[in-house]
Amino acid sequence: MAITIYDVAREANVSMATVSRVVNGNQNVKPATRKKVLDCIERLGYRPNAVARGLASKKTTTIGVIVPDISKSFYSELSRGIADVATMYEYNMILSNSDESTDREVELIEDHLGKQVDGLIFMSDSISDEVRAGMSTANVPIVLAGTLDVEKQLATVNIDYEEAAYVAVNKLIRNGHTKIVFVSGPFTRDINRISKKVGYMRALQDADIPVDEQFVIEMEDTYDGAYEGWKQIRELQGQPTAIIAGSDAIAVGLLNGIRDGGLSVPEDYELICFEHSILARVVRPQLTSIVVPLYDLGAVSMRLLTKLMNGEEVEEQQVILPFRLEERKSMK
Amino acid sequence: MAITIYDVAREANVSMATVSRVVNGNQNVKPATRKKVLDCIERLGYRPNAVARGLASKKTTTIGVIVPDISKSFYSELSRGIADVATMYEYNMILSNSDESTDREVELIEDHLGKQVDGLIFMSDSISDEVRAGMSTANVPIVLAGTLDVEKQLATVNIDYEEAAYVAVNKLIRNGHTKIVFVSGPFTRDINRISKKVGYMRALQDADIPVDEQFVIEMEDTYDGAYEGWKQIRELQGQPTAIIAGSDAIAVGLLNGIRDGGLSVPEDYELICFEHSILARVVRPQLTSIVVPLYDLGAVSMRLLTKLMNGEEVEEQQVILPFRLEERKSMK
Repeated sequence: MAITIYDVAREANVSMATVSRVVNGNQNVKPATRKKVLDCIERLGYRPNAVARGLASKKTTTIGVIVPDISKSFYSELSRGIADVATMYEYNMILSNSDESTDREVELIEDHLGKQVDGLIFMSDSISDEVRAGMSTANVPIVLAGTLDVEKQLATVNIDYEEAAYVAVNKLIRNGHTKIVFVSGPFTRDINRISKKVGYMRALQDADIPVDEQFVIEMEDTYDGAYEGWKQIRELQGQPTAIIAGSDAIAVGLLNGIRDGGLSVPEDYELICFEHSILARVVRPQLTSIVVPLYDLGAVSMRLLTKLMNGEEVEEQQVILPFRLEERKSMK
Repeated sequence: MAITIYDVAREANVSMATVSRVVNGNQNVKPATRKKVLDCIERLGYRPNAVARGLASKKTTTIGVIVPDISKSFYSELSRGIADVATMYEYNMILSNSDESTDREVELIEDHLGKQVDGLIFMSDSISDEVRAGMSTANVPIVLAGTLDVEKQLATVNIDYEEAAYVAVNKLIRNGHTKIVFVSGPFTRDINRISKKVGYMRALQDADIPVDEQFVIEMEDTYDGAYEGWKQIRELQGQPTAIIAGSDAIAVGLLNGIRDGGLSVPEDYELICFEHSILARVVRPQLTSIVVPLYDLGAVSMRLLTKLMNGEEVEEQQVILPFRLEERKSMK
């Protein structure tokens, strides 16, 4: 039986992403970890390039990657994970920005397929009917990374955002809060409207806390939007005492709005958020956060794509990666 | 005479990047600005696609982009600028990460040329002899974006980093400081060792302030590195009162080190830095900073590449874009 990257990761007791970083010579690996991984690779006889050469359907050795906006840290981190595994399997990556415009997405899918890519990784706020139609004409595999398919037809790699929101809200409830505001990015984004909001509602219901619809606030998913948007929370009836923010950008905007307005986190509001990028760590207090493994979402998506391109049997096309909760100082 | 993107930008009194954003349907443009630009495009009869179709040497309609690490905001912002202008001229972009490893860079250049790209945009900390040799075999144009060529042979797009450092240090001097520490990322990076350091020294010399070599500190260009590295400044003899940091990541690391250590910015140290990414805006106090126009560096590099690919006469292959100083709260 062929040795896989999973075998190496398990043997070395590290994440798949770490193995991938080591194999690709990425510098962001602790020396001791690198040595451990390389030792395991040698001991197990893992040969990623040999696997790559065996890929049956390899034609242009190029894959397509369509992201909303590469300048956003969410997508650039994810793309790095895709790129590292692509390199390991000797694929190049054509990268395009869609700005989440459906017209542009359809155009890009056509364009990438026209360039004869061997596979496609797609990221967006939601999968429109037009995009689904465009994808259905593809004769190469497609994987959605960090992107939901509400119809569960396409191959996807995600975390369980609903459960993550549940865990986050539950943590606030266990700290004694009953008046918890959910500040979300646009509800045009499936992950916000379906997963996170449902997790928020379910946590409240399980604790017999009535849901107050005015406590669900939708705003632009940007730092500046949230910094201004903070005023909506200040003006709420019912005196909320805790906030769950849908992203780091929103959380940091709210935090600065609160502090510049003379109030304090966690004394006046406890705050918990999603992502845990560098933003969550540079602000004071540092943000307690659901950690979304962005690099791994990308790396695993690309690995799944190689399997599909190779015509391998894939048991589960809807991959769910684990998340974790990072406790910092924005909660008591 | 054909109408160019420059004509549109001048007529609309906006930057070239803004025109490019509008043409590509990027959402990050104020509605009033978008309208103004679209009006000018219509009035002048600007047709970017017509220009694109006229490109003589267009073969694969693909360009290569080699970056150190797409997950770093510096490069992801630059890449977005490249991508938008590439789209306007109907090019796809193959993107690869080099981690600034010379071996990997040489391999990637070969790989991209092997894929028959029509042109190449390259970013790195410095241009090694091996990389220069690899580039010399290319039969397509190459542009360095945000990357120096000390031998001034290659086409490049940069700001005048030396002058920018001079301006920043001079601002500290005019605020009464004579003991100014320069905290730089690695001096293996030409922009640090040659440009910024020279600007720092020149500003001190012009003000008759003796240069104290212990005040020039080299450290890892990361938030965590600088957060730890702050101790080196605390332990300096001679009580420095001001700091110029080579990047946002370093500045924010130092800032948090200083504050978590019970001291204060700007009271104990005035601080000025380079880049002005979101990091500089989310911390408190917000950072006074040299603004490096990353998106524009990318956009102009790609525009220069289209000219070279089209065999157009290019008067100046070493393009220097303007920078500006953004005054916030980390200086008095």
